[in-house]
This record gives sequence, C-alpha cells and structure tokens, in this order.
Amino acid sequence: MMYSFQNDYSECCHPSILERLASLGTQAFPGYGTDEIYAAAAAKIREAVGCPEAAVHFLIGGTQTNLIIIDAFLRPWEAVIAADSGHINIHETGAVEGTGHKVLTAPTEDGKLTPAMIDGICRAHTDEHMVRPQMVYLSDSTELGTIYTKAELEAIHDLCRNRGLYLFLDGARLGAALCAEGNDLALTDLPRLCDVFYIGGTKNGAMFGEAVVIPDPSLLPDFRYQLKHRGGMLAKGFLLGVNFDVLFTDGLYMRLAAQADRMAARLKEGLVRLQIPMLVDAPANQLFPVLPNSWVDKLRRDFAFEVWGPAETGHTCIRLTTSWATSEEAVNALLSALQECVS
Amino acid sequence: MMYSFQNDYSECCHPSILERLASLGTQAFPGYGTDEIYAAAAAKIREAVGCPEAAVHFLIGGTQTNLIIIDAFLRPWEAVIAADSGHINIHETGAVEGTGHKVLTAPTEDGKLTPAMIDGICRAHTDEHMVRPQMVYLSDSTELGTIYTKAELEAIHDLCRNRGLYLFLDGARLGAALCAEGNDLALTDLPRLCDVFYIGGTKNGAMFGEAVVIPDPSLLPDFRYQLKHRGGMLAKGFLLGVNFDVLFTDGLYMRLAAQADRMAARLKEGLVRLQIPMLVDAPANQLFPVLPNSWVDKLRRDFAFEVWGPAETGHTCIRLTTSWATSEEAVNALLSALQECVS
Amino acid sequence: MMYSFQNDYSECCHPSILERLASLGTQAFPGYGTDEIYAAAAAKIREAVGCPEAAVHFLIGGTQTNLIIIDAFLRPWEAVIAADSGHINIHETGAVEGTGHKVLTAPTEDGKLTPAMIDGICRAHTDEHMVRPQMVYLSDSTELGTIYTKAELEAIHDLCRNRGLYLFLDGARLGAALCAEGNDLALTDLPRLCDVFYIGGTKNGAMFGEAVVIPDPSLLPDFRYQLKHRGGMLAKGFLLGVNFDVLFTDGLYMRLAAQADRMAARLKEGLVRLQIPMLVDAPANQLFPVLPNSWVDKLRRDFAFEVWGPAETGHTCIRLTTSWATSEEAVNALLSALQECVS
Amino acid sequence: MMYSFQNDYSECCHPSILERLASLGTQAFPGYGTDEIYAAAAAKIREAVGCPEAAVHFLIGGTQTNLIIIDAFLRPWEAVIAADSGHINIHETGAVEGTGHKVLTAPTEDGKLTPAMIDGICRAHTDEHMVRPQMVYLSDSTELGTIYTKAELEAIHDLCRNRGLYLFLDGARLGAALCAEGNDLALTDLPRLCDVFYIGGTKNGAMFGEAVVIPDPSLLPDFRYQLKHRGGMLAKGFLLGVNFDVLFTDGLYMRLAAQADRMAARLKEGLVRLQIPMLVDAPANQLFPVLPNSWVDKLRRDFAFEVWGPAETGHTCIRLTTSWATSEEAVNALLSALQECVS
Repeated sequence: MMYSFQNDYSECCHPSILERLASLGTQAFPGYGTDEIYAAAAAKIREAVGCPEAAVHFLIGGTQTNLIIIDAFLRPWEAVIAADSGHINIHETGAVEGTGHKVLTAPTEDGKLTPAMIDGICRAHTDEHMVRPQMVYLSDSTELGTIYTKAELEAIHDLCRNRGLYLFLDGARLGAALCAEGNDLALTDLPRLCDVFYIGGTKNGAMFGEAVVIPDPSLLPDFRYQLKHRGGMLAKGFLLGVNFDVLFTDGLYMRLAAQADRMAARLKEGLVRLQIPMLVDAPANQLFPVLPNSWVDKLRRDFAFEVWGPAETGHTCIRLTTSWATSEEAVNALLSALQECVS
Repeated sequence: MMYSFQNDYSECCHPSILERLASLGTQAFPGYGTDEIYAAAAAKIREAVGCPEAAVHFLIGGTQTNLIIIDAFLRPWEAVIAADSGHINIHETGAVEGTGHKVLTAPTEDGKLTPAMIDGICRAHTDEHMVRPQMVYLSDSTELGTIYTKAELEAIHDLCRNRGLYLFLDGARLGAALCAEGNDLALTDLPRLCDVFYIGGTKNGAMFGEAVVIPDPSLLPDFRYQLKHRGGMLAKGFLLGVNFDVLFTDGLYMRLAAQADRMAARLKEGLVRLQIPMLVDAPANQLFPVLPNSWVDKLRRDFAFEVWGPAETGHTCIRLTTSWATSEEAVNALLSALQECVS
Repeated sequence: MMYSFQNDYSECCHPSILERLASLGTQAFPGYGTDEIYAAAAAKIREAVGCPEAAVHFLIGGTQTNLIIIDAFLRPWEAVIAADSGHINIHETGAVEGTGHKVLTAPTEDGKLTPAMIDGICRAHTDEHMVRPQMVYLSDSTELGTIYTKAELEAIHDLCRNRGLYLFLDGARLGAALCAEGNDLALTDLPRLCDVFYIGGTKNGAMFGEAVVIPDPSLLPDFRYQLKHRGGMLAKGFLLGVNFDVLFTDGLYMRLAAQADRMAARLKEGLVRLQIPMLVDAPANQLFPVLPNSWVDKLRRDFAFEVWGPAETGHTCIRLTTSWATSEEAVNALLSALQECVS
Repeated sequence: MMYSFQNDYSECCHPSILERLASLGTQAFPGYGTDEIYAAAAAKIREAVGCPEAAVHFLIGGTQTNLIIIDAFLRPWEAVIAADSGHINIHETGAVEGTGHKVLTAPTEDGKLTPAMIDGICRAHTDEHMVRPQMVYLSDSTELGTIYTKAELEAIHDLCRNRGLYLFLDGARLGAALCAEGNDLALTDLPRLCDVFYIGGTKNGAMFGEAVVIPDPSLLPDFRYQLKHRGGMLAKGFLLGVNFDVLFTDGLYMRLAAQADRMAARLKEGLVRLQIPMLVDAPANQLFPVLPNSWVDKLRRDFAFEVWGPAETGHTCIRLTTSWATSEEAVNALLSALQECVS
C-alpha cells in the first residue's frame, strides 16, 4: 500500500462535485461561462469575499492564471516583482516572460516578500533603460508553505499604493493559508488589500479551477478578451461553475482546507517529536523536513513525496504535502516509518 | 421545454466518463500527465491512428491547442496559412498572433483550403520583407461543417511536402468529419498525411480534452516544455487520460460521432424536404439553413442555436449543431416547428 | 549611366546634413536623445506641427516605428485596422504580429481606407471571441502613392472618435503627400486629427530617422521605455537630432519633398502624353505605369525601378519613385526611352 | 571646458567615415544591405575574423542586436544565461523578455561568467516545469570593463559544446577588449569559439553599427527575415557598409580601440599612483574608481562621467570611459583634478 504526500492535486475531486456533475445529465448549457451555474458560483465567491462589485472569472489552472493576469495588467516594458522562489520565477517554464514581461526577484529564505525587498527593487530601477516594476506577485501560502499575516500583507499593500504598484495574490493554496495556525487573514480582507487575487480550487478539492477576483473591475474591463486571447477560456465554462458552486456551498472550501492543514499539523507534531529539522517553519499543508539520504531511500518504498533538493552533506530536503483527502492512517504510517528510521 | 442545437459542447460528458471518474475515489496520481491512465489513453490513441511511434499529448481546449502547436513549430518570422473562415483567424481573439505569428488567409466559400490557394499565398511571399509561410492549418470538419476527401487532403499534403510546409489538421470536430456521409478518410490516414493533428474530445462527448498526435516526435521533442510555457499543462493530467481512455475503449468515440451525424442527417433531410436553402452543403454535424427573419424569431422561443449572420434581405443564416446527446425528439420538434413556419 | 527610380531612400542624404555632422568634430554628447540638438529638433517639429504640448521622439526607421507605436497603444487582445496593401500588413515580415497584435484588413483599390471600411470591420468584431479593433493605421501618401484629402481624414478621425479608436498616421512619405497636387492637408492639421503620427525623414533627404509626434503625451507617458524595450533607442540620439534639426530649418523638409513631387509630376505628364496606363492616379512621388513586358526588359538596362507585379497578359506594373535627388536629366532620359518603346 | 569620460559613444564618428559618406554624393544604392559597399564590408569582416564561410550582417545598435540574435536562436521555452550584471539583464528594459525568453543569471563580482556558473544553472534546470537553458550570453569586454582570456573563453566554449548550448559573444566593446593589456584573444579565435558574435562599431568610432558574425550560417539561414521582423533592417544599409568598410580598412578599427585603451591605461596608472581604490581591476577602456562623495561633486564641474552606484559609507563608485577621441589633455586634466582632491 502506497501513501501519497506528493501533492494536493493528486486526487480527482471531492465526491460532492462528482455528484453535482452527474446530476447534470444531458442538460445543455450556453458556452464559455455565460451559463447560470457559472453566474451562481461567481455570486457565491463575491459573497464569500464580501465584495459585491467584484468581477469573478474562473480559470483552469495556476500557470495559465498567472500569465493571463500579469500580462493583462502590465504594459510591454513593465515587470512583476516576486520572491526568487516564486512559482512564476521557477516552475512555470518562463510563462510570464513568454508574454513579454520580466520577473524581478528578491532572494528570500522563507518564500515571503517584504516591503523592504520590494522597495529596494523599485529604487534600483530608475529610468527607461531598465524595466519598470509595476506589479507585486506573492502567493499565500508560499512555495515554502509559509503564510502572510494581516499586518505583513497590509504593509505590502501600503507600499504598493505609495509606489503605484498593482498587488496580485496567487491563492493556489489560499485555503491552506487561511486555515493555518497563526493566520489572521480572512477572505474578506483580500478585496481591500489586493488589486487581483485568486482562490485556488485545483489544490483544494476541486476537479480543477481557480477563481480570479478583481475587486475593482474597472481596472480590467476586457478580462474576457484576454482570457480567450491566451487560450484560457473553457468551452464548457459551466464545469468551472459547478466546481466553485459546490465548494462555496455550506463552507466546503474551508472545511477541506482545514482538514488538509489538520493532517499537516499532526504530521509536523510528529516530526518535531522526532527532532527532525525542517527547512522553514511552515504552518499550512506543506512541510519540508531534512532527512539523511538513507531515510529518504527507505521512505520511497511506501510513500510518495517530492524531493526538494540536497541539504547539508548526506541529507536531502523533501516536501510532504497533505490534502483534503489525506487520511490519519497515512500520517500515522509515515510517522511510524520515520520512528523506525530514528531508532 | 427548450431544445438545444447551439453547440456540440453544451453537455457535461458521456455518462461512462463520469462513471470512470467516480471509480477513482481518492486514489492519488502523479501530476502533469505522468500517470498510468494518461499513458494508457495515449497508447490507445496510437493504436487507433495506427502509428506506434507517434507522440500523443492531451490538452484541454481548442484555442490553447492551436496556439501551442503553431507557436511550437514556427520561428518568429514564419506564418501559418488558413482559410479566411478558419477558427484561428476569426474566433480565437488573435491567440496565434499573440504568440507572434501572422495568419495568412485565402477567401473560401466552403471553408476548405485547396492546393491552389496555398500555392498562391506561397508565390506571393517571395522574400524577407514578407513573412515566410511555413505551415498550413486546416480543420476537418471545417467551420462550415464541410469535410475533406482523402484525395483533397493528399493533394494538400503533396503540396506541403514540395514546398516544405508543415501540415496541421485541427480535428476539434474530427469525429463528425470521419462519420459524415461521403467521407473516405480514416484515422489511420492522418499520420502519413499530417505533421501534427488533434482528435477533439470537447465536441464529441468528453468532459474536455483534445488529443494531439505528432506522428514523427523528432519534429518536436520539447513539446512538453511548450505545453507548460503556454499554460496548457493540466496539473491533474490523469483527468485527460480518463476522458480519452474511455472514449477510445470499444469504439465509443466513433459511435458518439456517428450518432451526432445521424441526427444532423435526419435534420438535413427534413430541411431539404421543406426546401429550405442552406449556406453550404455540409455533411457532418453542423447545418447552416437560411431562414426568413420571422421564422428565426419564432424558433428562438423553443430552440437554442447560433445566428451565423445576415443573408439576403430579410433572411438570416443560422447554425444548427447536433451532438452525441441530441435526441430524435429534439430533431422532430425542430422540423415540426419549421413545417409550421412553411405552411 | 544608370538612372535610379527605385526608391526615395537610395541616396545618402542632403549635403547640408553631412555638413552639420562634420561640424560636430569630436564634441561629446549625452546619450539616447538627452542632448541639446535632439531637444532643439523636437522643438522645431512641435512648431512645425503647431502643437506646443506634443511629445516628439526620433526613431530610426519605418518598420521599427510602426511596431513600437502600435504595440505601445494596444493591449494584448487588441488589433489594428489597415488597408490590405498597408505596409504593416505586407512588407514588414509580420513585425506587428511579432508584438502580439493582429492586423485586420480591408481590401482597397487605391490603398486608402474609408470610414465605411473601418466601420464594417468594427461591426464584424462583436465580442470577446474575436480581437477588439482599437487602432486605425493609415499612411499618407499610401503604398500606392495616393493621398488623403482633409475631408477624408476628418471623416476617418470622426469615426475613430465615435468608436473610441486610436488614429495612427504613418508619414514615412508625408512630405511627398503634403506637396502633392490636390493635397489640402497641412502639417498643422495632423495634431488635431491623429493620436499619433510620424514625419518621415529616411524617404525625404535625411540620412535616417522618423519623427514621431504624440499630440497628447498623456496618452503614452512611458514611450521612452517602449523605445528601449523594443530596441529602438539610438545610443547616439544626437544624430537623429541633427537630421531633423537641419530638415526643419528654413523649410528644407518641404522643399525636398516638393522637388521629388515636381519630378514625379513631370514624369507623369510624359506618361500620360505617351498614353501609358497607370494602376492608380497617384499625385505624389510614386507612379505605377503598366507596361508591355518587352518594354520593361529594355528599360532595365539603363534604369533601376521596382517591379510591382504582373498586370494584364504580357504586361507588368512597375513602380517609379522620385526623390529630392532625382534630376530632370533622369526624368528626360526615362521619358525618351519610353518614347522609343512606343514608336 | 568640459571633458567627457561619460561614454565611448558620445562623439559622431571618426572623420574618415564622414569623408567616405561625403564622397557618395547623390549616388543611388539598392536598399536593405543588398549593395556593393555592404558586401565589401562584409568581405572585410570575414577576412578579419579568418572565416570565409561566415555570414555577416550589419545592425544598428546593441540592444536591438541582442534581442534579434537571442530570439532567432531560441525556441519559445528556452532561456539565455548571463552574468547578473549583463547588459541584457539590467540595461535593456526587458528587451529579451519582450521576445518571450527568460534571462537566467549568475551573480558575479567582475562581470564574468565561468563554466561552473553556467553548469550550475544547467543542473538546476532539470525538467519541463522550468525553462531550458539553451544559450550563453557574455560580453567582452564586460559591463565592468573586465576581459576574458583565451583559456577562459575556451573553457566556456567546451562546456557549451558538451551541454549543447549556443555561445553568443556581445562584442559591443570588443575592440577595447582585444587591445587591452593581458588580452590573448584575437578576432580570428572567435569563429571557432562562438556560435555567433558581434563586433561593435558604435562604441569604437563608427557613426553607428554592429557587425554580427555567424561562423556557420546554416545555424540561422533566415537571419534576414528575423532582422526585418524585429524592425532591425536599415533601409539605407549601405550606410552600415560604409562604416565597417572604413573601420576595417588599414586596421583602423584596432587602432581606434588601442587609442582608447591607451588613454584608459594612462588614467589607471594615475589612479593607482593616487592610491584610489577601484571596484574591479579592469584593463580595457572603462575604469570604476571609488571616490569620496565630495570629490565626485567637485569633479562634476569639469568632467562628465557616469555614477555607477553607492559604495562604502560616504563614497561613490563612478565609471570613467575613454574612447578613440579621448585626448591626453583630458586625461591629464582629470588626474590633476583628482590630485587636488587628494591633497
């Protein structure tokens, strides 16, 4: 029996989404997100974020969402600022550059940008011989499983206002961030703090889908043109509607995220007990323990996970990710296996 | 009761796909199409097209597939040739140009390119002050529901070989083409005639998905890089695998297409009987009757369809599309309504 | 002795420009157009067009200028409208598409757009599945040597205002247009009629250079970023300043254009006298006579010109272009040669 | 009297180029580099680099040359490796990203890449979720005035061969590099070590122009298409021919570079004598002394130079650049002024 901690998008989807899909039968819907389910889901998102005037668009996946948003906001000579470990900088095969925009990066230890980092990049870009930084990209939770506090996000927001930068929050793992220990941000904080953000479905129980929220739609009235232009408009838009309609009914979205975080917390507790060092102190659904290589080899037999990279001599940092579908049994099995390694 | 002839991607999907999805439960799969279902589906496609060495990639939708393929094959200064009514020219919001490539077009009445048209465009592009035509894009069936015969496609293929052009066949509605009356092409003809083509799922019973086939993978060894670079790599690639694995089991793909065509043929028979003129003689699952405007208004009450455009004074061309889910009842209802208009 | 009617950019430049360059000696200038000569030339342009608040930028050549301007004004999903014979559509190797934008075209006989053509294209682009037309590109004089009257340009301007389109006038041959018989436009009309236009130097006596005028600079405050981003900012910007400073001193620019037109008029008179048909009735510095192929072959021995394309059986359309440097002797020689062919 | 050490492209050009231009009179040339002077200049370049089969193209300026070359060689998902201080990374307003390609950087102290840096970047880019490094960009001399030895360049070349990377040498200041103390590279070494390189004219006495050399033209048979596509083809190509024909007659190119280096060496000697620290040990025509801020303010009155950036508290690093036109008088004046500051 193989247990997977490889990712939070390894399973099909929460069963209630499949049930809803099955209930559609051969009902015919208008295309491209002009149907009623799509509209209903958008309305639920607007309510959940407390922003009745927001525009809500459903996209399919993260890389597509990132490139579409960034390219929609920026002019050709403008650049986006990200942590050097940011998904757009490393793991999207140059998708943002593919739309013509440079990604400016600051080195970070924990994957989190600070106002000082952003300000430093802005100060270093002084004239037309350099790109103009015009947007800040951050993710919550980050690539390293860390999260932003409300005060941190507010400070970044303030700097962005002062410098005239757009603030874009990639929420591919927003549920896990908002349910993490120590989090004091709420969905309803985001519309006033961000110019655009998205609520990730793929990594939190949806079959697929990311819900983009633009609190002030006048910033981007033509977003649907850009969606189509970049190949991101799904013919059967009602499928995206179904996913988010189900997730934002009866609080399912947050319940799934909380479950993933709960399993991660339990796992973390065990790692701490076993005195296993971790790359960063991550409170959400991703953990980065550093293990002797021999342990890693042993674990591979029964567990799936990502190798994050080499650490101190003879050690490797791995990534353990929990999802709404992670069972206590899996967590216990992993901790037992580690216990055996230790002793 | 509203009957829809609006599109062939209006319904969720064939029930056997949903059943297969439900059977996955919380099983965890590796990401991005590296799982076994994806591999199995690719193998079935290779078998279906009779090309064991082909590379098969599953993408999500048509516009994305078109822009990813065209941009992967062409160098910056190269252009693609299409019918002026071609999907990439009109209905993709400049997605191909968005990747930097010009679309060169020939006017057509029936949506079909001919060797003479292609040759004419090549002859007109003589030097480095003009783009270099390097690819031919055609779709089967076309935007106007017409289809290519084997002889026609062979003639285009021969010209492409002689002129060193890539031939790309957009098969978003390939099933409907291959099951149409008068068709003499088979899936197994395509690998020798095309450099790249795709087998459309979205418009033939899949929840979503297009199966790209590259008969000679050495032409494009890095296609997965391009997939990711343009935002087209689905995290849960196994979902695409499920769709095509089911469609290519027990001939379901062709059975669904045949059903759509059968309903269209029945509808066409009725239109002919009622002496209603049509824009073109289309044998697949799209029909383009030209109706008095008053009829169109009447039909709107009970039927969904696309308005194609104004025709002779007081008339409008509409598009009626059938799908695997179109019922005889719907066809009969539409023909009755038209009968009433006539009398 | 070979006489050239091949182009209006065949000669180095007017001698007074070389003199001015020679006078610079080893004087050192600040780079990238931040020097005093550049500023002085810009001031002269502002005065010549009667628009003290205009932004003026000097670029090197036409294709570069077109791609930089169009891409600066448009968002990714927006398109530019041009005559099908427009330079950006045919003779720039897809440079505009290279920046991601579709060129929408209307067929014309004389190379001139009309409000009806523009309106038709706008009406055909109705939703987000198609590009959004957002700019009109026209050139004066056109690729076919024809010119716009004030009334014609005003009508296009009015339509653009009503439809919210930018109007961009490519003035690579603006001098020849403004000095042509029948012209009633003046440089001072352009700032109120166009959102952006340029005054061509390359084809009117400059060594190189095009003067871009943006009457309302708030439309594009970051133009210098775009200039650099697209590789169009000349290190020795003062050279561009010198060219336009000289051309816009003592009316040299218009005098050179008038001389080119005078030679073309003389040539045209002779062609008419010889009853040689022409492709269009072009009043500026380009003529398009249609000649028997045998004549074309004979002319080739002593004259350089462009072959425009095949005409009626056994005939060819050629292009004869005059410049500020075309001599009466050359015109007379060509007319004599044609006279010989006729008799 | 103001002395300029601001740049090596501050002056018009060497007088013999102006003389040659003046000698052209109103002679008419074919356009776009198809003339005899262009061909003759290309032949001289081929001879100078000892590579009779090389393709030679003349472009206008550096940023344009960089973006055109890099985009011509790379596929959409491929990236170029550069030093973090590289011109393409900092000072080109994202021009390379504007063509869709990521610039991957390694931090350096002296502006020079090493095989280890390049190898490290390649090792970190392991799969299709990241860009594929496909080209190495370096400049000789570098942004910091340092130069590559033959052994260093050979080592990079060997790594590139092993890893299948293209090697592109930006020679905007190639003359200054080859004439610098300690240099052991020759023009004739470059064709075997680089896949593409250019010999800078703008910064070494030309009015403008960069000579691109592609030793194996089969790598890029369509380079002229790309030139035009990106707006880099000069209508009056013969002007570029004139510049390089003159520079590569009687060794003028190397003589001008040697003169610039001689002046820099004299200046450096003086700086060392005055015990003024420098950012790096740069042997070519750029020096980076670190001065107390009060000295910098004093120098500004009589000398033009670039401020490179803040250094230790109260100090600033400035850049002093010499050119073929820098006089001994200017060097002496600057050293005297510094002497005064010291005492």
